[in-house]
Order: sequence, then structure tokens, then C-alpha cells
Amino acid sequence: MFVVDTTHSPFAKLRPVASRSVCLTDSFWEPRREKNRHATLPTQYDHIEKTGRLDNFRRASGKRPDLDFQGIFFNDSDVFKWLEAAAAELPNTPALTEFVETTITEIAAAQQEDGYLNTYFMFDKAGERWENLAWMHELYCAGHFIQGAIAHYRSTDSEALLTVAKRLADHIYAVFGPEGRLGACGHEELEMALVELYRTTGETKYLTLAGRMIDARGSEPSVIHGKGPFDRRYMQDHVPFRELHEVTGHAVRMMYLSAGATDVYLETGDTTLWDALEKQWANMTERRTYVSGGLGSRYEGEAFGKDYELPNARAYTETCAAIGSVMWNYRMLLATGEARFAQLIEHTLYNAVLPGLSLSGDLYFYENPLENDGTHRRQPWFGCACCPPNVARLLAELPGYFYSISEDAGVYVHLYANGEVNMALPSGNPVTLHVATQYPWDGDIAITVTGEGEFALHLRIPDWASGATLTVGETHYPATPGAYAEIRREWQNGDRVRLHLPMSVRGIRCHPFVAENNGRVAIFRGPILYCAEATDNGFVPNLHQLQVNLSQEWKTVSVEGLPDIPALQGTASYTVLSGTSLYTESRSVECTGEGVLTLIPYYVWANRDPGQMLVWLPE
Amino acid sequence: MFVVDTTHSPFAKLRPVASRSVCLTDSFWEPRREKNRHATLPTQYDHIEKTGRLDNFRRASGKRPDLDFQGIFFNDSDVFKWLEAAAAELPNTPALTEFVETTITEIAAAQQEDGYLNTYFMFDKAGERWENLAWMHELYCAGHFIQGAIAHYRSTDSEALLTVAKRLADHIYAVFGPEGRLGACGHEELEMALVELYRTTGETKYLTLAGRMIDARGSEPSVIHGKGPFDRRYMQDHVPFRELHEVTGHAVRMMYLSAGATDVYLETGDTTLWDALEKQWANMTERRTYVSGGLGSRYEGEAFGKDYELPNARAYTETCAAIGSVMWNYRMLLATGEARFAQLIEHTLYNAVLPGLSLSGDLYFYENPLENDGTHRRQPWFGCACCPPNVARLLAELPGYFYSISEDAGVYVHLYANGEVNMALPSGNPVTLHVATQYPWDGDIAITVTGEGEFALHLRIPDWASGATLTVGETHYPATPGAYAEIRREWQNGDRVRLHLPMSVRGIRCHPFVAENNGRVAIFRGPILYCAEATDNGFVPNLHQLQVNLSQEWKTVSVEGLPDIPALQGTASYTVLSGTSLYTESRSVECTGEGVLTLIPYYVWANRDPGQMLVWLPE
Repeated sequence: MFVVDTTHSPFAKLRPVASRSVCLTDSFWEPRREKNRHATLPTQYDHIEKTGRLDNFRRASGKRPDLDFQGIFFNDSDVFKWLEAAAAELPNTPALTEFVETTITEIAAAQQEDGYLNTYFMFDKAGERWENLAWMHELYCAGHFIQGAIAHYRSTDSEALLTVAKRLADHIYAVFGPEGRLGACGHEELEMALVELYRTTGETKYLTLAGRMIDARGSEPSVIHGKGPFDRRYMQDHVPFRELHEVTGHAVRMMYLSAGATDVYLETGDTTLWDALEKQWANMTERRTYVSGGLGSRYEGEAFGKDYELPNARAYTETCAAIGSVMWNYRMLLATGEARFAQLIEHTLYNAVLPGLSLSGDLYFYENPLENDGTHRRQPWFGCACCPPNVARLLAELPGYFYSISEDAGVYVHLYANGEVNMALPSGNPVTLHVATQYPWDGDIAITVTGEGEFALHLRIPDWASGATLTVGETHYPATPGAYAEIRREWQNGDRVRLHLPMSVRGIRCHPFVAENNGRVAIFRGPILYCAEATDNGFVPNLHQLQVNLSQEWKTVSVEGLPDIPALQGTASYTVLSGTSLYTESRSVECTGEGVLTLIPYYVWANRDPGQMLVWLPE
Repeated sequence: MFVVDTTHSPFAKLRPVASRSVCLTDSFWEPRREKNRHATLPTQYDHIEKTGRLDNFRRASGKRPDLDFQGIFFNDSDVFKWLEAAAAELPNTPALTEFVETTITEIAAAQQEDGYLNTYFMFDKAGERWENLAWMHELYCAGHFIQGAIAHYRSTDSEALLTVAKRLADHIYAVFGPEGRLGACGHEELEMALVELYRTTGETKYLTLAGRMIDARGSEPSVIHGKGPFDRRYMQDHVPFRELHEVTGHAVRMMYLSAGATDVYLETGDTTLWDALEKQWANMTERRTYVSGGLGSRYEGEAFGKDYELPNARAYTETCAAIGSVMWNYRMLLATGEARFAQLIEHTLYNAVLPGLSLSGDLYFYENPLENDGTHRRQPWFGCACCPPNVARLLAELPGYFYSISEDAGVYVHLYANGEVNMALPSGNPVTLHVATQYPWDGDIAITVTGEGEFALHLRIPDWASGATLTVGETHYPATPGAYAEIRREWQNGDRVRLHLPMSVRGIRCHPFVAENNGRVAIFRGPILYCAEATDNGFVPNLHQLQVNLSQEWKTVSVEGLPDIPALQGTASYTVLSGTSLYTESRSVECTGEGVLTLIPYYVWANRDPGQMLVWLPE
């Protein structure tokens, strides 16, 4: 669930500006969202239908008694995530109507008398319901369903599916609520959904249940039934949440858990939750995040590694983990209004989420390595297909991330793209912002304000934008990188704000404890991380032989196969050492050379001919 | 099976000199072997008994109908490997007699009428025999049993257990031989055992079956029943063996497969096998071996990685994989008499096998990282306990690796340690070598020859021993590093050979494509790899902050907790950079300093107080 409705959340500093109030007309996001509507969502529906994911519902409702359950036991969740995305895009995309109608019909028909809904635990498996919370993702699937139903309700005003979701949530409350047993899911997700259901329906029992499930983790003995110490850490059940001061275990689960706990904080103000969240965030950002914003260092367990364990070629960096980071950081942002969270959202969107989706909109990465030999390619679908619909729902709900309203009648702009937003201030006054910019390729942003009266406009100044300038007419305002610049004034219709963010090319160096990145540099321009692909850099036998000199004039150019995407061009030397031996006392230089180095945005790698790719370039 | 009897192998260049002909009296290996006899083997027997591994045999034979099968389905193999080790040490260790007798009695009693022997596939599981070759390790267990039985036969001259092994092998031949179906084990191992059984009994059908099982891999469709492409590569079933030109998949399986194929080559001279073996060896040594000699870069699948994928902290480097490398290289050495294989055996023994065993002889590493934060500690036993008895059988059979006899009446010395060996030359003449040396700590080796007549003595000159000198009396002989020095002469009783191997401290640099090791050095003295442990180097906050200068005089010293093990001491500077941020444009120097750097042999790390350990030191 991306569009978090904190309109009435007592501990939210920011109130949301819903997606439907935002119109993006930019050349960066909107074409990707267009692909999402017309390529991604329809082809995903095809996959969902062809792989039996919808048939599982038909089987469960008795329409297809001839079928066995197909696929993985948590495949329902893919349908629900797709539904969340399609529901959000429904107003703009009539072509999705029939798919959505079919989907909600099949889902609703599969619900049991008592509210239970999961197509795996039917018939011979019905006796195993709620038995294996650690591994069977039953509550996880329920969470995705509730989110999909809320999205459908918000998009259509129809309560049909929301009613189904409430019946399921009530069933779960009966089993795991205060009158039931303690329990939580091995794969967190339901917590967020329950809080959003509380926000949507006003029924406090859903909030109670979310808090209870967060509190249930780390009990002795486990109420999740994890087997052994490794397994409990894997699912964040090895210590109580308030004692969890690192990000650890399965990365997606960790993000969903922290996001759910932040949701509970937004409603309850429980500072013991907040203290743990701050510590988790510090551990993540200071020691366990890739330079792309990607999360998860280990293939085994799709998991966070130890501090400074950030291998590049074997980075797992699941697309879903990056999406989970966006979800968590958005909730932290709503709680605080602090720029560091919006900074990480933007950074992660451009550099860790978007690489997961092909430019064509129908191929996906599950893992997002920062170095590759050219064999890692995006796939049309996966057996475990969590990432594709997760990307789809993020793009569908993306406009909801751009703007917020603050308590003290201020407006916040978190992200920049050409377009327009219509908001109502708490005073009741309407405000429209027209944003004109070529961001992220260009740092000039002009915002025309339509609206009158005194309020504060907060513009996020990215942490890399040193030298940023901000003016309204002839008046200059401070623009400190890494913070929100505040323009509090009596606005007049047509006031024009001009923000300039210098788009210099920057070399980022890594903490010295990450040995692999020593002597290397990651190159950014504005918010965009760049990388080298072999196809553009044939002058060097292997990208590890490069020596990049940062102190030069970089040109932005267009390269074959990536029109309209600014590449960076400069010169670089290279050195080839002699010998094929892996270990030797010394090596001699076989040859050296120089050539034109071309770098492309990391998020578009592997969209052309396969070949070596490298983010961290030797200096 | 370590002591490979190639006495009659037509394509073996070298004939073995059996363990029992070799007496080690050195201060390096023999104390470890003594620990093996009196600490390792008895405590392992305890673990085997306490964890139900022997009870599984009692259950299978009907003696304990009250018991369920205990542990993992391949636990029989631990008993067999322990038996192989204990059998080899039986002549020197009367205290093992009772344990061995109990073990062979229980094993023999568990054999079925038709020769079948595997305690997991009994009773309700009996119908599943030979069904799931890919995953259930049935043939693997059989291989370890055959090896244990051969070791027992060689040690005791009793055919009791060998007869049991032949009955099992005959049963397998009936199922998988030319009259049966094609098949092989997901976990290779049986191939080596069958060839050794052929060598022991002279029955060619066992050799035929071994070759047939190697040929069966990579069939379309798979005859191992692997599921999906990943699984087939994991068990080296994705291509036919002769098309396998890399080392890939599960590292131990890969080593056992190549060792088994080399065994078949030694008997058949099939050059198509040899061609593949050479290519696998080149890929392994040039791209996929740790500087320790350890193998296996990935936790997931306990597997080889891609070329140059050699992470240090997350090195898997299973102790068993290093042992497998020793087994394979020994067979390659027997086939060729080429020093490169003996070089790798020595290197692997000191730096990749021995780290797996504590100095106390009763604690084990399964994984052997080259960098650690101090949390990785040796354990007394494992649920999957393959490594402990594997180390035990290697140490038990180690003397068999030291010497060989060649076709042309020459003697080969592969490894150096104080002691004595008695051999019969093909001419029938007896020869005794008395070796006096403090190797590997000192490079002076004196060999006194007792024996007369013309023959060649081949002494391996390690590849690092530049400046080596070799004399017999006043006569100098060439001593080229990385080759065998040949001394062919008319020997007189009491002739004294003096070999000097300069023990300088060397810094080894890694191929530049292993980014993590760029700008770093691994330090060796003689054959021994050194590392830094925090406990000796408190002057530096973190070992990654070191800057080591190789061009200095290193002292060998004794350090607390490691008596009699030469440590290296020199000076090193360090630099602490400011800031805790993971990524930043630049960092300033917070402080610098200098201190006394102490390095210890890598194989003894984690024998004292827990703390950070690092092999690749920044220069």
C-alpha cells in the first residue's frame, strides 16, 4: 500500500495529497507510468491468468473442481498486488476494467463462509489453516488482499471488495486478536494493511491487531513457530521489535515490518517503537545500503548481510526490497517531515527500484547486481513473481509520493517532475502548483502558485545540490542541501518560484571497510547513479582495467539504443596487467591506453546488447 | 579414500608408497596426527554414538526396533568416514579397536539379503530405494562405505568388511551396471570408491560401473533426475563430463567427481577424460581458488562462483572442498608426476585443510572465511557433519602422500617432514630415506639415503623457493622452483642430500579482476599463509585501516597462546578516516599511527580470544 492516508493520524506531521490530485506530465515518470498502464499491467494479467493464479480462485470457489492448486502456495499475493496496481490506474485506463472485474469477482467468490480467504488452504489443506505461520505466508497474502481492496475502494468508491476484506480481517481478528491466540506472519506485510484498514474504516480493532502482531515477534517461545535461531532471525523473530536495533534477515520482510511498525507509531505515538525505528534506519543507511539504495547483500535468505557486507556482483538487492524501503521511508517522512527520508525515497526510486523494470515495461529483474558479466537479464515473469506487480503498484501510485500538506498549513514538495497538483490547505483554501522542469536531467525547476493567502511552501533541497538557489520574484530564500527550504509568505496568484539545483557530476567514495570499493568511485549526476556498460566502452578489454579521472569536463550525450536518456562522456585511461595467474608476487604492465568513456544511468543497464556492467569504477 | 593404490594402474606415472612405510617424527604433522588418534577420533566416535548414527544401524538390523531413524538421511556416511580414519590408525592406536569392532559389527548386521545397505531406506522407506538419486545421497553413502571397508581391509588384512562392501557394490552393479539402468548420484563420491574396489579386488566390473556413472552425467533427459537447470549444474549434471571445462556447482561434489574421473583415467588412459580434467584444473587454479587453496565462493549451494568471484568474509571454502582438492590433485599427480599438483596439495593442506581443525583436535570449521569479525568459531560437531571425519581420515592417511615410486625406478619426495620412509624400488632393492628438517618453519632439509644402486631421487622444489640449492656431498644439482629436482646417480649407503629452500617472507598480489583484493597483499613465509588477528594487533582500531609495508625485515617471534608456532612481526602504519557515512564525496584523515604488526599462520586463527581476522592486508 503506497498511498498512506494519514489525514487523521495523530502522530503524522504530514497529511497526504492523494494520487488523483496530482497530474504528472513529465518526460521521465509519466512515460514509464504509461507503459505501466498499457504494457506492464495487461501482460502481468496474462501471466497471472496463464500460470493458474486466477484459476486457483476458481478452484477455491468451486467453479473449477477439476483443477489442482497451481504454483507456489503464496501465489494469491501476486493477484492482490496486481489488483492494487490496476485499481489505482483504473480511472485512467478503461482497458483494465474487464480484467479488474474478473479478478474481483473470482476473489470474492472464493471467500469462505467464515471470512477465510486463501486458495492454497482449501479442501484437503483446509485443516492446516493458521498452523504454519512461519513459512506459509497466509497472513502475508491476507495483507496484500486488504491493500488491494482498499485501493479498489479508493479508486471506485465501491465497497464490494472492501467488505470482503473486512470479513477476512474480522476472521483474522477472531483468531489472533485479544480473544484469540498470539501470532504473526513469518513474512510481515499484514501489519501495514491492518493499519490502513483502520484508517479506512475507523475500526480500532484493526490497529490493535497490527500492534499485537508487532509485539508478538521475538517472544519466548516463538509464537510464529520459527525453527532454530537462523530461521528466527530470518523473519525478525529472534528479538522483540523494540530490541531490534539493526536491519537483518530477509530484506523485504524487514522493510515491511518497519513500515508496519511506523504505521502503528503514526496512530499511537508509541515512542518505544520510534526509538527502534530510528536505530534500524541508522544501521541500514550507515552500514547496510548499496550506493544505489538497494538492500540485501545475500542470495542465501534474500537477506541483509553484516555491516559493510555489500558485494557488487553478488548483490541480491531484490527489487521488492527497494520498494519496501520506499514504503518504509515514506511513513517515516509522514511522521517527521524530515528531508532525509524523502532524499532516500528519491534516491531509491531512481537507482534501485527502476532498474528492476525494462524500458519496454514487460521484463523484470528480481536481483539487481551492481556489477555483472552480461549474463543477468530481465525476465518476463518468475515462479516467485513478487517483484513484477510490486513495481506495477509503485508506479501506479507514484503521484501520491510527490506532495504533502503539513499541520501548520504548509505545503511540502518531496519530488520534482513536470506537472500540476491541486491541494486544499487546512484553511480550506485551494492551492495549485504548476511545476515546469526537465528534472532529473536538468536542475531548473519553476513552480507557479495559484492560490492566495499566507502559507509555507517547503521545497526539498537534495543533499547533493550544493550551490542551490531559490527565488520568488526578486526575493532570495535559503536553500540548504539535505533540508526543506521554507518559503513562508503571503502568496499571490501567479507567484513564480524558481529553484536551481546544480547538476554537477559527482564522484562518491565508499566507506573504507567495504574493501571491494576501495580506490573506486561511483558517479552521479543529480540524483542519478551512472554505470559503465561494455557496449559503449569497447576501447577497454575489461571495465576493471579502467582508471577514471573525475576532474574533467563531462559531456552529456545521447547513445545508441537509449534515446532521450542523457549519457555521460569523458576520457579514461586503462591498464592491462600481464599474466593470467590468479596470485603472483608482482605483475608487469602489458599495455596502457586511453579512450572515450561513456556512462549510462544505472537504471537503464541491460536494455541493450548483453555485456559487462560496472558501477564502482577504479580511479 | 586417500591412499590410492596405483601399483598396477597402467596410466599412472607414480606408484604409491603406503602410509605404513612412512614414519613421521616431525613437530608439525605428527603432533596433529597424535591429536587425531587420541582426541579427534575418540570424541568423534562419541558424537556418532550420541547422535544416533550408530543406532540407525542397530535399528536397520532389527536390534533396536524401538527407534526411529535419527538425523539427516546421509548420516551413515559420517560413520563410514570415521571408520576409514580409525581403520587407518588402528595399527598405532589400540584404544580404537573396540570402537572399530563395534562399528563394523553394527554395519555388517544392517546389510540386507540382497546386499543393500543404507539405514535411511529401511522399513517404510524401503520402497523408495534408488528413486531419488539427485538428492538422497544413497550412492554417495555407498561410496564412503566401500572406502571405509577397503581401509579396514588394508589395515587389518581381514576381509570381513570388504566382503560386505563387495556385496553392496554387486547389488549396485546389478541396478546400475550394463544390465541395469543408467544412473549416478547427485553427490559424487562412489566413482572413486568403485575404482579403488577394482584395484583392490581386480574385478573389472567395478571399474566399468565407475566409468558408466561418470558418462551418465549430463544426459538428456537427466538420469539423475535433477529438477531444473540450476539443480543440474549444482550436481554437475548440466553437461556431459567431457564438455565440463570449468569447476562449477557444489564444490565438494565437483572435486569428488574430478577425482573419480581421474581414477578412471588412471586405469583406462581415456584421453577425452584427461582433456576435460586439464581444463577443469586450469579454470579452478586460474580463476576460482582462494589464496589459501580453499574452494567454494558461495554459501548458496556450497558452490563455486563465477570466475574471479572470491569474497573473503563470505568465502564458503568448506573444509571438505579443500580435502576434495587434495584428493583430486593427488590423483592428477599420480597420473603425471608433475610438481604443480603436489604444490597445490601442500599449499591446500597447510592453508585450507588445517584451518578446519582446532589445535585441540576436537573443534571444526565447516566454512573457512578469509576475513571475519570474530564471530566465526569452530564447533564440536554439526548436524551435517561431513567435515570432521573427513579431516580425520586425511590426517590418518597423510603419510601416504609424502613419497612415490616412479616407473623408471625413481623415488619422488612430494612433501617434507622429519621422518623416515622405507621403499622397495621396482628393481627390488630396498631404499630408506631419513629426512631431517624443521620444515615448514625452516627450509633446510637433509636426507640420508640408505640403499645402493642407480636410481633417481626427485625432490619437489616449491614454486616459491627461488634461490633453492641442492647438493649431495660436494656435487650441486639444479633446483628449479615449481619442478622436481632430479638426482640420478649411483647411490652409496649414507649419501647425504642437502636441500635448502629460502624461507623469505613474500607478498602475494591477486589478479586485478578480484576487486576486493586490489591494493592488498597476502603474506606467506615458505608454504604458510599468514593473517592478522585483532588480539595481537590492538594498536589499530580495525585491521582494514592497516597499511603494510612489505619491504622490511620481518622477525619470527612466539606469541601468547600459540607456543612453537612462528609468528611474523614487523611494523605497519594505519590511517583512520573521519565520518561514519557509508557514501560521501571525500573523507579526511582523522588520525594516523604506527605499531608493531604481528601476523600468525592462517591455519591457527580463531584458536585464542575471538576478534577480527584478515588475510588480505592493505598495502
